[in-house]
Amino acid sequence: MDKNTFAPTPPMGWNSYDYYDTTVNEQQVKANADYMAAHLKKFGWEYVVVDIQWYAHGAGSMRDKFQYIPFSQLEMDDYSRLMPDPTRFPSAANGAGFAPLAAYVHSLGLKFGIHIMRGIPRIAAHHHAPIFNSTATADQVADPTSICGWNPDMYGVRNTPEGQAYYDSLLSLYASWGVDFIKCDDICNTSLYRENQYSAAHEIEMLHRAILKCGRPIVLSLSPGPALIEKAWHYQQNANMWRITDDFWDNWKQLEDMFHRCELWQNSISVGCYPDCDMLALGKLGKGFSNEHDTHFTFEEQQTMMSLWCLFGSPLMLGAELTLLDEKTLSLITNRDILEMLPAVCRPRQICLTKNHAIWAAYNSATNKAYFALFNLSDSVFDVSVCKSELQAALASVGMQSSLPEQIALQELWSTEKADFLQPMFTATIPAHGCRVYRFEV
Amino acid sequence: MDKNTFAPTPPMGWNSYDYYDTTVNEQQVKANADYMAAHLKKFGWEYVVVDIQWYAHGAGSMRDKFQYIPFSQLEMDDYSRLMPDPTRFPSAANGAGFAPLAAYVHSLGLKFGIHIMRGIPRIAAHHHAPIFNSTATADQVADPTSICGWNPDMYGVRNTPEGQAYYDSLLSLYASWGVDFIKCDDICNTSLYRENQYSAAHEIEMLHRAILKCGRPIVLSLSPGPALIEKAWHYQQNANMWRITDDFWDNWKQLEDMFHRCELWQNSISVGCYPDCDMLALGKLGKGFSNEHDTHFTFEEQQTMMSLWCLFGSPLMLGAELTLLDEKTLSLITNRDILEMLPAVCRPRQICLTKNHAIWAAYNSATNKAYFALFNLSDSVFDVSVCKSELQAALASVGMQSSLPEQIALQELWSTEKADFLQPMFTATIPAHGCRVYRFEV
Amino acid sequence: MDKNTFAPTPPMGWNSYDYYDTTVNEQQVKANADYMAAHLKKFGWEYVVVDIQWYAHGAGSMRDKFQYIPFSQLEMDDYSRLMPDPTRFPSAANGAGFAPLAAYVHSLGLKFGIHIMRGIPRIAAHHHAPIFNSTATADQVADPTSICGWNPDMYGVRNTPEGQAYYDSLLSLYASWGVDFIKCDDICNTSLYRENQYSAAHEIEMLHRAILKCGRPIVLSLSPGPALIEKAWHYQQNANMWRITDDFWDNWKQLEDMFHRCELWQNSISVGCYPDCDMLALGKLGKGFSNEHDTHFTFEEQQTMMSLWCLFGSPLMLGAELTLLDEKTLSLITNRDILEMLPAVCRPRQICLTKNHAIWAAYNSATNKAYFALFNLSDSVFDVSVCKSELQAALASVGMQSSLPEQIALQELWSTEKADFLQPMFTATIPAHGCRVYRFEV
Amino acid sequence: MDKNTFAPTPPMGWNSYDYYDTTVNEQQVKANADYMAAHLKKFGWEYVVVDIQWYAHGAGSMRDKFQYIPFSQLEMDDYSRLMPDPTRFPSAANGAGFAPLAAYVHSLGLKFGIHIMRGIPRIAAHHHAPIFNSTATADQVADPTSICGWNPDMYGVRNTPEGQAYYDSLLSLYASWGVDFIKCDDICNTSLYRENQYSAAHEIEMLHRAILKCGRPIVLSLSPGPALIEKAWHYQQNANMWRITDDFWDNWKQLEDMFHRCELWQNSISVGCYPDCDMLALGKLGKGFSNEHDTHFTFEEQQTMMSLWCLFGSPLMLGAELTLLDEKTLSLITNRDILEMLPAVCRPRQICLTKNHAIWAAYNSATNKAYFALFNLSDSVFDVSVCKSELQAALASVGMQSSLPEQIALQELWSTEKADFLQPMFTATIPAHGCRVYRFEV
Repeated sequence: MDKNTFAPTPPMGWNSYDYYDTTVNEQQVKANADYMAAHLKKFGWEYVVVDIQWYAHGAGSMRDKFQYIPFSQLEMDDYSRLMPDPTRFPSAANGAGFAPLAAYVHSLGLKFGIHIMRGIPRIAAHHHAPIFNSTATADQVADPTSICGWNPDMYGVRNTPEGQAYYDSLLSLYASWGVDFIKCDDICNTSLYRENQYSAAHEIEMLHRAILKCGRPIVLSLSPGPALIEKAWHYQQNANMWRITDDFWDNWKQLEDMFHRCELWQNSISVGCYPDCDMLALGKLGKGFSNEHDTHFTFEEQQTMMSLWCLFGSPLMLGAELTLLDEKTLSLITNRDILEMLPAVCRPRQICLTKNHAIWAAYNSATNKAYFALFNLSDSVFDVSVCKSELQAALASVGMQSSLPEQIALQELWSTEKADFLQPMFTATIPAHGCRVYRFEV
Repeated sequence: MDKNTFAPTPPMGWNSYDYYDTTVNEQQVKANADYMAAHLKKFGWEYVVVDIQWYAHGAGSMRDKFQYIPFSQLEMDDYSRLMPDPTRFPSAANGAGFAPLAAYVHSLGLKFGIHIMRGIPRIAAHHHAPIFNSTATADQVADPTSICGWNPDMYGVRNTPEGQAYYDSLLSLYASWGVDFIKCDDICNTSLYRENQYSAAHEIEMLHRAILKCGRPIVLSLSPGPALIEKAWHYQQNANMWRITDDFWDNWKQLEDMFHRCELWQNSISVGCYPDCDMLALGKLGKGFSNEHDTHFTFEEQQTMMSLWCLFGSPLMLGAELTLLDEKTLSLITNRDILEMLPAVCRPRQICLTKNHAIWAAYNSATNKAYFALFNLSDSVFDVSVCKSELQAALASVGMQSSLPEQIALQELWSTEKADFLQPMFTATIPAHGCRVYRFEV
Repeated sequence: MDKNTFAPTPPMGWNSYDYYDTTVNEQQVKANADYMAAHLKKFGWEYVVVDIQWYAHGAGSMRDKFQYIPFSQLEMDDYSRLMPDPTRFPSAANGAGFAPLAAYVHSLGLKFGIHIMRGIPRIAAHHHAPIFNSTATADQVADPTSICGWNPDMYGVRNTPEGQAYYDSLLSLYASWGVDFIKCDDICNTSLYRENQYSAAHEIEMLHRAILKCGRPIVLSLSPGPALIEKAWHYQQNANMWRITDDFWDNWKQLEDMFHRCELWQNSISVGCYPDCDMLALGKLGKGFSNEHDTHFTFEEQQTMMSLWCLFGSPLMLGAELTLLDEKTLSLITNRDILEMLPAVCRPRQICLTKNHAIWAAYNSATNKAYFALFNLSDSVFDVSVCKSELQAALASVGMQSSLPEQIALQELWSTEKADFLQPMFTATIPAHGCRVYRFEV
Repeated sequence: MDKNTFAPTPPMGWNSYDYYDTTVNEQQVKANADYMAAHLKKFGWEYVVVDIQWYAHGAGSMRDKFQYIPFSQLEMDDYSRLMPDPTRFPSAANGAGFAPLAAYVHSLGLKFGIHIMRGIPRIAAHHHAPIFNSTATADQVADPTSICGWNPDMYGVRNTPEGQAYYDSLLSLYASWGVDFIKCDDICNTSLYRENQYSAAHEIEMLHRAILKCGRPIVLSLSPGPALIEKAWHYQQNANMWRITDDFWDNWKQLEDMFHRCELWQNSISVGCYPDCDMLALGKLGKGFSNEHDTHFTFEEQQTMMSLWCLFGSPLMLGAELTLLDEKTLSLITNRDILEMLPAVCRPRQICLTKNHAIWAAYNSATNKAYFALFNLSDSVFDVSVCKSELQAALASVGMQSSLPEQIALQELWSTEKADFLQPMFTATIPAHGCRVYRFEV
């Protein structure tokens, strides 16, 4: 098995975190899956992902003091493996785990994903609990010095055969449930130890090995970022996607910063290997954080976000509560012209990045279509210009063999308006924080 | 109560770690106390300190893999407080704790000390165990992100009234046992977090407050080093001694390095406030580490160590198994001339430090005696010289009011030989790694 | 010669920088000296210091672009030594240097100081200019990789006999002029090289040696800060004062920060060794910076500054143009009660420092007087309290032998009001950023 | 002009540094060019590069003390531009510069390159020398705080129109000489400032702009390394090659380390954009360093070096004195099978890297040939194995569309021996530090 075949294009889906925080339940997951099947599936959206602490009793009940309640009760099987809290996920009762919910999602023609924290439950280690299919016990597998800086549930796993046995037992269980996607947290950048932010490299490898062994093509997503550019090869070898920022939310500063992240990672995108810009913070957000609100992004900013994520080729995970989507937001995530830039075969290339603007190009050798996007990063209307020579050089560097003609017939992908690129420079007047995305045939 | 009055001179005693590691038992502690009372007490030695993991069952039983066995069983009372392992400390059975052993040590005219790890037992937090005299439980007191990088037993304590209640309950228990000295570990420099090596500052303050409240003048010693020079005032406000290096052992490189540490800390010594050079690695060492041996230091190096520790004013804690002391080693630690430099009133001052040599002076305004020591740091016999003008300047800077006379009558304190300091320079021929310490009347 | 005898108390004087920047001239220096002799000398003020670039032609003429004009013309003698620009200092013409101006200052009963940049003029190195009393030339003395990050005039000097010869020639010249005080810049913290901020340690030593050789007791002041606490001993061995901050100006944030600096350095003050809080930014300031203004400090903040500098024992250098001093400012710098805390024998000790307040104590064993100061660091009126037990402990730690009595009769030094300290706590209501300083007999 | 077209394949040539240090002269350059034309040109070798300090009088004459003599005399034209020292380059006399030597090299069908230090001569700045075609003078262009940490000749250039004018004047001159290749030093990583190792980013851009303006397709090579991976895009935008290590010499430790560098940079290779492993340290080396010797690399190590450089796609610059090449060395650099892996279209991919071995694959979509190389990094004979599944995944990730067949017919490129790759693993026994490189048709 080659893990790059598990996700031939950047995964598209929905994730429960941005709206529900730690509190999502079975009914809510199903409602979002239903919506996706009915309205989004035909545009490529397919993953339904249950995010953090589905195993924690009382998750979210002390939200004023803790996001993750220290030393709280966790649902766990007899083999040190966390199980869904049956209060929130009734179908998981009696050891069924997420199998029923996964089956439901599959029945809609969608895929099912879960979040995990790297490691083994702390309480299992303290209780010397058994490991499935192994003579080892959890205290032998857990590394007492390897903790997460922001979540109290787990200890890291030692780089030993016993540790591998634990991860194998985990993936075997998840595969039996029908899990298609795992978002593993506290592993892409273990920021607790500033001098070794890649302290869990061996756990990434162990997860990868366990996936290959389990026989199910489970997509592996690593969190949180920022991923370390000097470890690009290691991510590419072992995972399908890795977060290039810390948690992304609906504020302009973070969106602006994403341009720098994309500059950094543009060379490290290939089929099955996706630097991840994080969830799309649009629509209704924040209920589980006691802060339910419509995205703080302006519509122009939302277009900028969608354009950058798609042109760059990031995985797309919707943060919005789907059942509350309005028409305008829906139009953003169902624009087939924009979405067609997503696959890795459509290779992106930054042309420039200044305080006031960014320019990107992309070229798809399969379709022989070229794209460029002009972004206004300034706080007022601004003319953004690109030279034909720069565009030529950028497209050549991502595989375009021919030369650009004298006159290029452009189509803008948000407005569908036509335009002509004449020598030597093309200029667009763009609102604050907005963008224009042009496509042409080569 | 002013904690500076608890230790008017640098504490002198014995510590179980260098010989026993985690394994010392009651009989061994008593044997060392007996020896101290019989042979060393009259020279000022008085503290008997039981070092790390006296509460851990099976401590040392997996020494090939772990110094501290992860998730092992710890003796604990009903209030989240660790108790002596009764297998090793039979008198501690039935909740007596260290009271009987402390009483024995006191009966010899000596003082009794224990080692603790900062924090609250991890297992107590996971079990939501009660806190004495408080409605809080251990899970509310423990900080799940605050761990020790090298010992798996504890969680750090939150900076809250509940956290203070826990430390108060601890000190109340120790005071009831008759503890005179606490060496708290993982607190002076919490090296796990490289970007915040002083992450337990609040626990130092909480310990200090708990000591003042407990009514017993318990000396507070902080480990491990290196202490942070920029926190000198904070150590001075809250503790009696703090380690200025990581664990010190019997190798020349570490002893040589101590000269740099002493340079750094020489301004921060005062009554009740002692930068600590760590245990004296002489005599028999290492049995608990499966490495029983006579100190690797040459006799000259041992003289250098004793001279530096005393002139600098470091606490003196013997690492040797006392019952196995030989005559030569005994002579080193019972030299009253050398020991008289120890008190803070005898203020030290470095004159120079190069790759090959170090020179220190000291002046005691109470006795009007002055000292200087010449150290040969090179690997062969070497002439070390000091100028009278340098010596004058150094002694003046630590309080000598008068001018040095034309001719100074010196006594060397190890050999008791006499010598004369004539203008402009005094030179001694010193063996490799050795020293000469001179005293004169001002 | 012991350099600690050159400045038995913290130097007090005036420095041209804060008002004139690089532009001060002979007449202006004399006018300030005249004022000092007439009005301030009797309170202890005595140094008149000409600050940076007295050797630069056209200094200040491109102030909109450069503080220090790159590659500008510098007045230099035949031996690579900078000389005063005769346009600004007419008496320096014909090689007289600062001798005439120094003589004028001396005639007023005051002392004369100059600023220098460490190193040798870059242009001298490029021209292979000679060194006085040496066969070496400037290119052999200059280190082409050692530059100042903010001033373009000099190269650092190599740690060689030829380098020492250059510094000897410099000090010999300055001594012949009658210089009493040298403020050397780019030497206390050579911030250009972040990984080695003490890159000019050898030049500090060379300057110290050259001063001892020159036969004149020239006070050595090192700039800029922040001085490195881990080099405290080295500063103490070689210099009389060293800056503990970068340039200090009249804004509250910097004044507030000085409390942290003083906490850091309080252990490293002794006769002849003074951590330096920098110039007193009061009165008229900033003319040479095209920003002439009255100090931005409120009167309360000015009292806080004077109180901290004096209690801590910092050198006092007036930044104000003296001829423009008003009565209120004059009262601040001529308060004998406040100034009497200045000498090192009056040892300071911080009692506490929080976001809202600071408390310091001091004890003078020579006079048996004790002091404590309460500072309100918050932005509104605030009650600041000190416990008697804290005060007792703090004073004991700086040499007070006796115990505080039941009732202490206090005098506040700014208002001269009386008060009583009764058990267990003394409280004062203090305006924002203000202070109260109390004295009592022990 | 698109700079990526200037070097459609990684440049191959000879550089004077490794053999001559700073001392190479015209005759020696010609002799090497002659050899190249006669023996190497037909294999693709074409650049003849004169390395550092061709402008310095007396270069190398104080080699015991300085590699680069501080403040020495530099040949310079009237416009602040350095010129070849006519003593060593007689044809450069009378302002001819390198035009005659370039013409000679061109006459052999080869290309001519020179080394420069970024910046403007320090002496020009101190003398306010003119800039060609500009009213600015050198003091206005030079940044006095921007120096090189290891070479004393230059100041960095300010990011201003005047600075651009200087670089334009420089490239205009070099283009008029017929220069084809510039290796610019102290620019890829300006290590002097540890906290800003990319301090000359603007000078890279200015050089790039000046090249585009000068009308000649001059290849731009940046030194020294290590290049900063987070700046990959910026290098790609502005330069043709950039050093990924500090100076590479003939010791195994550095060669072993190169595998880590290649891991890091493998995603950032494209046509016209080449991460540079530095000169090939083989043949006779070191004469100018007073250390003439045959490469210290074993023959196996030399094969490893050639294999890695070619498979990775590094530029190839010979460090050897060409006229002294022996047959065996010649065979290494004229192996067409190995050299055919060089072009960027042959995309490399690391499969694994451990302490003991490394495995790389490469795929050329133009020829449909695949390669893999097994490297033994251990110090003894070692069996290195690769799995077919790993190889399949690696080749797929660099563009191979098909699946590997059951049986693959391999040819080893150094020995020309045949072998078969059967399921599931292929193993070769390889001498210490040696390699095997296999090619097969897809």
